[in-house]
Amino acid sequence: METKFQQKLAGMIRSVRLATLGTIHDGNPMVSMVPYSAAEDFTFFYLLTSELAPHTQDMQKNKNVSLMINEVDDGRDDPLTLARIMIRGQAEMLPTGEPGYMPAKTLYIERFPKSAPLFEFGDFGLWRITMKGGRFVAGFGKAFNLTADAMKAAAAALEGGSE
Amino acid sequence: METKFQQKLAGMIRSVRLATLGTIHDGNPMVSMVPYSAAEDFTFFYLLTSELAPHTQDMQKNKNVSLMINEVDDGRDDPLTLARIMIRGQAEMLPTGEPGYMPAKTLYIERFPKSAPLFEFGDFGLWRITMKGGRFVAGFGKAFNLTADAMKAAAAALEGGSE
Repeated sequence: METKFQQKLAGMIRSVRLATLGTIHDGNPMVSMVPYSAAEDFTFFYLLTSELAPHTQDMQKNKNVSLMINEVDDGRDDPLTLARIMIRGQAEMLPTGEPGYMPAKTLYIERFPKSAPLFEFGDFGLWRITMKGGRFVAGFGKAFNLTADAMKAAAAALEGGSE
Repeated sequence: METKFQQKLAGMIRSVRLATLGTIHDGNPMVSMVPYSAAEDFTFFYLLTSELAPHTQDMQKNKNVSLMINEVDDGRDDPLTLARIMIRGQAEMLPTGEPGYMPAKTLYIERFPKSAPLFEFGDFGLWRITMKGGRFVAGFGKAFNLTADAMKAAAAALEGGSE
């Protein structure tokens, strides 16, 4: 992927705060809106969800999820030129005692300061989505397959950049 | 649903041009970004997709889909207060000869003038999603189940309104 597309991908992950989560719900697809944060190398994504929410119950039953991050519609003539990042991943709830928990929580609260009290609620849990593959549609007719290595390279491409 | 929530729902469908589509892809959830238009009474949604796209191939194999329309992130402190409409539906491709085709095409092109040439491409097809049920999350802790009747009522609530 050329540097400009890596920077575009990285810029989206840094600036777009909401993703769409796809889960399997009673055998059918279900889509929901989720605030998310990403690990610095973009290979993990974190969600804070309530076990009262259907998508949390779906992830408890089936770890395979889809996560999409898309450019916000700016009203342009052709919306198909908006970029979107589609991630295939596996979801697991992070136990509070596990080593990765605190850094992930810190990252999440940095992005969503208002979420801090939710971490104290018994029904909320921090989920980690491990990226298995994906696709980056950088606009109409321009697309790239995504691997963990491609994500790391994109994360590195923005370092020292214009965040 | 109180009138103000009906108007909110209707306003979102009229103004938010992009939805997220959930399909089953090789047994796993898949999420993609789709421009859409809605029938005037909000019980049908229309997509124009290429059969080269994975989500089109998914719908050919499994008609059960999920469609989400969400308020655009305005950077507010708590993104969970953003509203979203989640639709469960059944997708079917509309043959060009069927009575509903022309009105649906007209509606779609009205919303997306740039899409007109795509209707001439052999690989593009107009899909109709018939709403089976859904949920309207009008903000954190405020949600309604959606039926076809609730959608019709919401569509009517905006009539003569401030579109």
